[in-house]
Amino acid sequence: MTQSNLDTVRFAVDGTVATITFDKPERGNAMDQQMQVRYGELLGEASADPGVRAVVVTGSGRSFCPGADLGLLAGISAGTAAPPEHEGFRNVLAAAYADVPVVAAINGGCAGLGFVIACAADVRFAAAGAKFTTAFARRGLIAEYGVAKLLPELVGRGRALDLLLSGRTFTAEQAHEYGLVQEVVPPEKLSSRAHAYAAELAAYSAPRSMALIKRQVRREAGLSLEESAREATALMHASFTFPELPEGLAGWNERRPPKFPPYQGD
Amino acid sequence: MTQSNLDTVRFAVDGTVATITFDKPERGNAMDQQMQVRYGELLGEASADPGVRAVVVTGSGRSFCPGADLGLLAGISAGTAAPPEHEGFRNVLAAAYADVPVVAAINGGCAGLGFVIACAADVRFAAAGAKFTTAFARRGLIAEYGVAKLLPELVGRGRALDLLLSGRTFTAEQAHEYGLVQEVVPPEKLSSRAHAYAAELAAYSAPRSMALIKRQVRREAGLSLEESAREATALMHASFTFPELPEGLAGWNERRPPKFPPYQGD
Amino acid sequence: MTQSNLDTVRFAVDGTVATITFDKPERGNAMDQQMQVRYGELLGEASADPGVRAVVVTGSGRSFCPGADLGLLAGISAGTAAPPEHEGFRNVLAAAYADVPVVAAINGGCAGLGFVIACAADVRFAAAGAKFTTAFARRGLIAEYGVAKLLPELVGRGRALDLLLSGRTFTAEQAHEYGLVQEVVPPEKLSSRAHAYAAELAAYSAPRSMALIKRQVRREAGLSLEESAREATALMHASFTFPELPEGLAGWNERRPPKFPPYQGD
Repeated sequence: MTQSNLDTVRFAVDGTVATITFDKPERGNAMDQQMQVRYGELLGEASADPGVRAVVVTGSGRSFCPGADLGLLAGISAGTAAPPEHEGFRNVLAAAYADVPVVAAINGGCAGLGFVIACAADVRFAAAGAKFTTAFARRGLIAEYGVAKLLPELVGRGRALDLLLSGRTFTAEQAHEYGLVQEVVPPEKLSSRAHAYAAELAAYSAPRSMALIKRQVRREAGLSLEESAREATALMHASFTFPELPEGLAGWNERRPPKFPPYQGD
Repeated sequence: MTQSNLDTVRFAVDGTVATITFDKPERGNAMDQQMQVRYGELLGEASADPGVRAVVVTGSGRSFCPGADLGLLAGISAGTAAPPEHEGFRNVLAAAYADVPVVAAINGGCAGLGFVIACAADVRFAAAGAKFTTAFARRGLIAEYGVAKLLPELVGRGRALDLLLSGRTFTAEQAHEYGLVQEVVPPEKLSSRAHAYAAELAAYSAPRSMALIKRQVRREAGLSLEESAREATALMHASFTFPELPEGLAGWNERRPPKFPPYQGD
Repeated sequence: MTQSNLDTVRFAVDGTVATITFDKPERGNAMDQQMQVRYGELLGEASADPGVRAVVVTGSGRSFCPGADLGLLAGISAGTAAPPEHEGFRNVLAAAYADVPVVAAINGGCAGLGFVIACAADVRFAAAGAKFTTAFARRGLIAEYGVAKLLPELVGRGRALDLLLSGRTFTAEQAHEYGLVQEVVPPEKLSSRAHAYAAELAAYSAPRSMALIKRQVRREAGLSLEESAREATALMHASFTFPELPEGLAGWNERRPPKFPPYQGD
């Protein structure tokens, strides 16, 4: 296992799955600027590490991430603290941009900036009873960091407006009903379930396929169906020459897990 | 309470919540041109009124709005009545364009033009047993006023095509299952539930935040994630200087409802 | 009834509903290139046939379509078989482009290329117990033929990434929960249910309305709400002069099914 040296965002690798843990218990994992930057760095490192094939993001204690530290917000509002950098969204949305698949294991309170971080993950598991809120409208803020785009894509426009306009609190069970969370798990089983899912991605899905599919989903939403199909056809032709395909077919034919090579971008 | 002088579209304000009621019982609230224009005007006025922080739209009697008056449609088809103006969509979609949040309280039959009006609202509550239909394909019409865009955003492409191609009738309970309606309520409780939700928006969410978030959701869907995040970052930086933020933080810290200023555009 | 002369893709017309059946039992309906081309041709012919008002696509035996023939894929990978043509997506996505409405009756295994064919249909019914998988990532492939755009539109971005990244197998019941499948039916009733739905489209919805609405849904997703409403307004004005409208109103007023003319494009 590798360990991070910034102890408010812990990083550990076990086999092919890395875990990033928000761990600032004295603030309930509320994020200062340093934590946001470190989160982005760690996801970048995990994506570039050939040994890491999936990442789980979670929080320590009873909270996932309740958002930006309110003291920080008060300081920014008062002019005594610096606002986030213009490129800060690259950290908050790092999961969406990472080549490696990112599974959010939402163990508890998930609000504001923490809500955006969860929305940017590829797949979300939540502990039964975990509480969610977008929060922004109740603080006099706006839909930050692209969540005005992400949330409607996750739960539909009607539910997204309900959650963004009201800033009301809702439960993991409701989040599942809305399509925001893919699975609700008893709290004591959340970590093992999220890691089992991540380990299955790592064992059966080609890292290159996952990286390319993430880019496709991000990109093709903005294309017409015809443009989407044309780009996918070009990529499909390329994929026929990848070493992944014969290995994928061999694994399938021999009823064994495929042994895909790592992928570090191209 | 303020009262409208066009009695087929009633307008009333109670505290910070306005109610717009389609009220033409002899036609089951079917809409003529004058009603459509008046509906748009009233939403515009509500949005511009600093005392109004949320709007409920509903119908009187057993129907919400069954669509355009069929006599009007027959007249247009026969060339004896004028078709809607090119800018008429600004009335039908007024809820989507209004700065103020709009809650549809769908008390009964909701079809055609009435269905589009409901889809353009931000949040939808429906009375148990209320009947819905897009209706267009069964009259030889097309998907009017942007509903071909709105409905897939609300219920997904598959369900949208089912409902638009078939023009079949479905219930409030199905509408909830599809994600079209956020909550189904016993008929006798619909009005109080919708007004309670609207009152909560009015009490806890900053009017400026709601107006900006509505614009963001409308706009950022058409942007890439990166463009969406960049625009949101610029807006976030502006929001740090709004008077809403210190009040939102103070209310939160003091465990009291925030006292946000009204918002009348900028 | 008309019969196709390529016996691996059967074509039959009964009344106003055509049925296209993948029928290559020795390969579980896995598709070679000829079948893909033939499928596209048959949907084109059905769309152009004034007697056909709806199409059901299904598979014979226990499988819908498990995707491209693995022997074909192995040949392409080894360089001994030709890859699909660049315009091959026109066959795979033929249902989305057809003027005629297309109902998928997913009788069993639905994977890879077969999964895309199902996603491109307008409405999906599935037999209880039918198994689904995107499959691509587990073979070292990418999200083919626009499914990276189609699937998020059908089930939301979170569930789409789950299904595309994991390539895991899921059931018809889960597909219904996700919004991918509009209805799950006992296997022995699947065909009659899908045909009854198609026959209702054929009996009550104007063919021209269905063709135009399909184009609208495909096109208006990429427009702003205002652009969408403007285009729909222009189309609405045209629709007021169509012969379909007076017939649609007359059928409604006389409480009888409308007698709409066929539609063969314009």
